[in-house]
Amino acid sequence: MISSTAPEPIVTPPGLAGVVVADTAIGDVRGEEGFFHYRQYDATELAREHTFEDVWHLVLRGALPAAEQRESWRREVAESLQVPAELAERLVTVMGASASDDPLLTLRTALSAYGALTADRPLWDSDEQTKQVRAVRSAAVVPWLVTAAHSLAGGREPRAPRPELGYVGSYLAMLTGREPSAREVEALSRYLVLTIDHGFNNSTFTARTVASTGTDLTSCLVAGVGALAGPLHGGAPSRALDALDEIALADRAEAWARGQLAEGHRVMGFGHAVYRRLDPRSELLKETAIGLGGPTAELAVAAEAEVIKVLDEAKPGRPLRANVEYYAGVVMEACGVPREMFTPTFACSRVVGWTAHVLEQSRDRKIIRPSSRYVGPPVPVSG
Amino acid sequence: MISSTAPEPIVTPPGLAGVVVADTAIGDVRGEEGFFHYRQYDATELAREHTFEDVWHLVLRGALPAAEQRESWRREVAESLQVPAELAERLVTVMGASASDDPLLTLRTALSAYGALTADRPLWDSDEQTKQVRAVRSAAVVPWLVTAAHSLAGGREPRAPRPELGYVGSYLAMLTGREPSAREVEALSRYLVLTIDHGFNNSTFTARTVASTGTDLTSCLVAGVGALAGPLHGGAPSRALDALDEIALADRAEAWARGQLAEGHRVMGFGHAVYRRLDPRSELLKETAIGLGGPTAELAVAAEAEVIKVLDEAKPGRPLRANVEYYAGVVMEACGVPREMFTPTFACSRVVGWTAHVLEQSRDRKIIRPSSRYVGPPVPVSG
Repeated sequence: MISSTAPEPIVTPPGLAGVVVADTAIGDVRGEEGFFHYRQYDATELAREHTFEDVWHLVLRGALPAAEQRESWRREVAESLQVPAELAERLVTVMGASASDDPLLTLRTALSAYGALTADRPLWDSDEQTKQVRAVRSAAVVPWLVTAAHSLAGGREPRAPRPELGYVGSYLAMLTGREPSAREVEALSRYLVLTIDHGFNNSTFTARTVASTGTDLTSCLVAGVGALAGPLHGGAPSRALDALDEIALADRAEAWARGQLAEGHRVMGFGHAVYRRLDPRSELLKETAIGLGGPTAELAVAAEAEVIKVLDEAKPGRPLRANVEYYAGVVMEACGVPREMFTPTFACSRVVGWTAHVLEQSRDRKIIRPSSRYVGPPVPVSG
Repeated sequence: MISSTAPEPIVTPPGLAGVVVADTAIGDVRGEEGFFHYRQYDATELAREHTFEDVWHLVLRGALPAAEQRESWRREVAESLQVPAELAERLVTVMGASASDDPLLTLRTALSAYGALTADRPLWDSDEQTKQVRAVRSAAVVPWLVTAAHSLAGGREPRAPRPELGYVGSYLAMLTGREPSAREVEALSRYLVLTIDHGFNNSTFTARTVASTGTDLTSCLVAGVGALAGPLHGGAPSRALDALDEIALADRAEAWARGQLAEGHRVMGFGHAVYRRLDPRSELLKETAIGLGGPTAELAVAAEAEVIKVLDEAKPGRPLRANVEYYAGVVMEACGVPREMFTPTFACSRVVGWTAHVLEQSRDRKIIRPSSRYVGPPVPVSG
């Protein structure tokens, strides 16, 4: 064996759980307290009291828009929501030729093409102003890309953005083909504000890792989309709703929950790795779902109470509560979002968080390059 | 302030330098010793004595192919190098519509489309056999994608793969449009074997991070391509050759190196973050460049000696030697690879490493999700 003189490495827990890999001023998740914030502001209060555009400005630019900034910011977003005709035509060609049933995978391809077609440059060759403009445009194109992908997968023509309706309203109009109500826009806006950012979740960390090479913003966002497609990350928000369907058929949440536990399954929509007690996103989405009304919301509330009873009994001392998944599906469905568009809808908000993190990471010119521990068969003496 | 009861987090050095984030049996880089291996085998010996296909089998399947496996493995690679006509047509449409001058960015889009068009499924829904087949096919399509992207960017028709020439020969034939010589294939094969894998470099770590969500292999590889496009990672291999051009014009390497240091620049092609003394890849590539001969190789050898003299004088006690970049460019140019194809050529080998790492990561069903430290303004009491 060759003797090693390297310093003792730092060994971390699996999945880097609890390992601080970077500093950030964008936000923080305090799991023990059931609290998370964006740049000092309680995220649930933001979702309740501010538009998506306001919070976008906060997360990306560092502050809520001042009264005199609001109109120019609204205009910047509205302009960014437009997709020039020739660009749209090329992107439709790309999406048509690479057609997938999954709009998220089409987004991965189309967003990559969007970056190439709009001459995205390495972050390190760009000044802050250029990066800020691109950050807004790259996020603003996502609602059009995912709804166009959805239309094409269904054999329909993509619908044009409706910038006069704002980010959320334009998305809903493109998705459903009808005028969204103010209540629907408000409800979906709450969901989207609540999911802009959430610590160093996998896709955000991925985007930052890619950004640390100095590559272009698009490469970081495309990597984030690929991570979001994973069943352990963004690939799950319709599962809780699927479970409610099962419960509705059986008319008994208690029996369903007992059955899940007996078969050794986790109960979908309950419990969270970081929030040990309360998921603050779930609380506001529950309120929002009740406000929207309808049989699914009623079923969800009744089923939640029964499932919690079963879980508390089965796992005393380890309270499992409804997580963001549980009421998110109820709210999205009530707003007219079909289940196959749940994760693409999530992408429409999380992309804003990714852009803010990529820009923050790009100010630190240090590549992320960890080490590994070799655990294969011993290496023979060499040379 | 809300008081925190969370356990003390582990804080890591910038860029996760020296932090062990996972176990691997694929290989190891021993920087202090100037040595790296793939699954027990000295990588430079592999590059000298084995074909690219042999080493691919070693890295992906865990062992060099036994005599009786070699023919079936050769056939599997040859079949995977073929691109069915209808698929090729769709991919050419995608590449044509998303045209970029940079073949690496076109690869990012086209590889994503390839995954969607071939119905790549989440890693967690796939058995080991399915993953192995897809790993081979996804890597095998990369040489065709990057050479097709290069052809399209130059207004030419993409050339068809030449499976009978093997992975390296087919690549060179598609790239140059002529029959590669045995010497060229051997030389480029050495470069490609040497760059299949190299610890938890940024793109490999990125691919593994994405894989930990359970997403599809394509999402992991596309993320890796985006990272490789970064100037701090794969975006640099032509810089050393550009420097040799400058030196040739001035006819004085010593003056050039002194000028670089005086202007506060790093001397391109010299020094490595992990290899403090010798970069073992550089040694073999130097020998290979000399074997190929030609004025650039002669200039490179002469310039290296002079630059080292200047560096040793300027930074005594911190020996800076030629890194992989320096002779890689010389070898690639001598084989007929144009400079804009240096990083895409690198992608043709590193993609094999990514697939092996993604498959290894996918056996561990734990999502990578680190923490961060909030360093923004203090959060007011809430609620």
